[in-house]
Amino acid sequence: MKTRAAVAWQAGQPLSIETLDLAGPRAGEVLIEVKATGICHTDYYTLSGADPEGIFPAVLGHEGAGVVVDVGPGVTSVRKDDHVIPLYTPECRHCKFCLSRKTNLCQLIRGTQGKGLMPDASSRFSLDGKPVFHYMGTSTFSNYIVVPEIAVAKVRPDAPFDKICYIGCGVTTGVGAVIFTAKMEAGANVVVFGLGGIGLNVIQAAKMVGADKIIGVDINPAREAMARQFGMTHFINPKEVENVVDAIVQLTDGGADYSFECVGNTTLMRQALECTHKGWGRSIIIGVAEAGAEISTRPFQLVTGRKWEGSAFGGARGRTDVPKIVDWYMEGKLRIDELITHRLKLEDINEGFDLMKRGESIRSVVLY
Amino acid sequence: MKTRAAVAWQAGQPLSIETLDLAGPRAGEVLIEVKATGICHTDYYTLSGADPEGIFPAVLGHEGAGVVVDVGPGVTSVRKDDHVIPLYTPECRHCKFCLSRKTNLCQLIRGTQGKGLMPDASSRFSLDGKPVFHYMGTSTFSNYIVVPEIAVAKVRPDAPFDKICYIGCGVTTGVGAVIFTAKMEAGANVVVFGLGGIGLNVIQAAKMVGADKIIGVDINPAREAMARQFGMTHFINPKEVENVVDAIVQLTDGGADYSFECVGNTTLMRQALECTHKGWGRSIIIGVAEAGAEISTRPFQLVTGRKWEGSAFGGARGRTDVPKIVDWYMEGKLRIDELITHRLKLEDINEGFDLMKRGESIRSVVLY
Repeated sequence: MKTRAAVAWQAGQPLSIETLDLAGPRAGEVLIEVKATGICHTDYYTLSGADPEGIFPAVLGHEGAGVVVDVGPGVTSVRKDDHVIPLYTPECRHCKFCLSRKTNLCQLIRGTQGKGLMPDASSRFSLDGKPVFHYMGTSTFSNYIVVPEIAVAKVRPDAPFDKICYIGCGVTTGVGAVIFTAKMEAGANVVVFGLGGIGLNVIQAAKMVGADKIIGVDINPAREAMARQFGMTHFINPKEVENVVDAIVQLTDGGADYSFECVGNTTLMRQALECTHKGWGRSIIIGVAEAGAEISTRPFQLVTGRKWEGSAFGGARGRTDVPKIVDWYMEGKLRIDELITHRLKLEDINEGFDLMKRGESIRSVVLY
Repeated sequence: MKTRAAVAWQAGQPLSIETLDLAGPRAGEVLIEVKATGICHTDYYTLSGADPEGIFPAVLGHEGAGVVVDVGPGVTSVRKDDHVIPLYTPECRHCKFCLSRKTNLCQLIRGTQGKGLMPDASSRFSLDGKPVFHYMGTSTFSNYIVVPEIAVAKVRPDAPFDKICYIGCGVTTGVGAVIFTAKMEAGANVVVFGLGGIGLNVIQAAKMVGADKIIGVDINPAREAMARQFGMTHFINPKEVENVVDAIVQLTDGGADYSFECVGNTTLMRQALECTHKGWGRSIIIGVAEAGAEISTRPFQLVTGRKWEGSAFGGARGRTDVPKIVDWYMEGKLRIDELITHRLKLEDINEGFDLMKRGESIRSVVLY
């Protein structure tokens, strides 16, 4: 079949809208009509050429929602017409990682996924007989995609695609870090470094589970208003205090119970650790630092009881937990609508990248 | 009353045996006859002058066991003739830290303890009317000591003082890191960096809770034999492998479930983190690094599921957990006898420091 897709022919170039050939689903695979996809910083990072593991030509995109059109032999967990979110972190439920019960990082198909291929080591996309690579196992910048069954989360059919696509990455990354990684308890004091989309999702999850103080830290004062709408109780602009760690320790009577770094800046990662409470503070890194950057601290920070951790895809198991987050949105526990700041047609997808580059969007969504 | 004690008059000088005046216990305080005390690296560190918080003149020592001789008004948890271990980490059970249920680091008397004083801001030791300071709230290099009731663990009366004094610091630091900090489960794969006294105690606790692979790492091959007696299953000499992290990852099919740094070397701390398993590895720092030293890693190590933590006094609540460790020793679950390598009279205490300096002892114990 044919599919319209935005193709990244090479790093540093705008995406190009093409009509690609798409081979149908093989055993254990699912054909999905993508209805909407967000544009995430990770797509931007790969397209820029900064991602050392970037492969071209490829169909980028990893934050989608859509409908099952067809399934290959042996597929049992979804069927035609199911509403689904494709997962860049799959959940096979039988690899060492899934069975550990300690992580969401299913590794069953990591090798081929990292090479831009389906689990059988081939691509379903091609143009003029030449393969075009998949990206993060999802490639949601294509109207139709083929993905492994283990990378498909079935969600309720009444949830709007143009909102829940954001659950495919950003919402889950922030909300999940609070709920699945930190397992935060009611009454906790929380600090969030960076009030972009991830930070706002951390904030609303902290509010959802009953946190007490929810302190936002950002050098951009324009971000304060929306963060307060999402549940932030205190705002600290590092430019306006002498020492941001001291300010947080004072505000929380000794330090935060939890902190989240949502920027990808190693200096902030250190501050985020050191502003947590002696004895039990937990600091969770969400942001992706530039290649080669390192975090540092004095070991005394850890010996006196602070824990340094991280979170990927919010610690969420894709097929098990992503549908729960869709439910929470539909039940009004989580807000997404206000976070979708721009809507685009596929033809205009490069505008979304430009908005991101200029810092003018929280989330741009492409509608098919 | 009078007490014989080894006094540190100033940094860098040998201890001096003196007969000091000791004021009796005030309200909430306990007079203890110390029967035995270990000599720990922390005493050595302070005596050397390297400890920036060292105070002189002081009675060092923090790893003792003895008998209650008298109690001050209001003391209810111990009485005359009780066998006890004095605690440099007290357990008041009503400060914010004790009530958090998340840490053993009771902070009720930290301010005065750090200044070498009792909670009422005075010292019980003096010579010729001039105060001599307490050390770590314990000062077990004195035959008689006065300590706060919250810093006294009551233990069974049939346990030998010359063995259980080691539970006052080293044993609990190693064993507790496994049981109270890590809460390690049976079947875990464990790596222990440094096979001195702390490392051996980590190893025997890992064996006690049913760990699978217990891998010891040390550059001194002479330490292998005893570590195997204590439960080590594999030995790695970093001088004999190309890359110690790779060797551990290979030996454990992807990395250790838990690692413990028992040396105080920030390079080893990084290796200890990076040799743990993606998704769930936990690395626990026990060793005390030199002042100003920092640990570093790429944040990707944490984002992909490893956790960097620390442990002080093994995460043990002194009055609650120390008696349990004494029981485990008496029940034959833990070995201490082989770890006590030298016995000294108080007059010869400086020999114990010399043995430690030359690396010729695991633990020297002073008998009163």
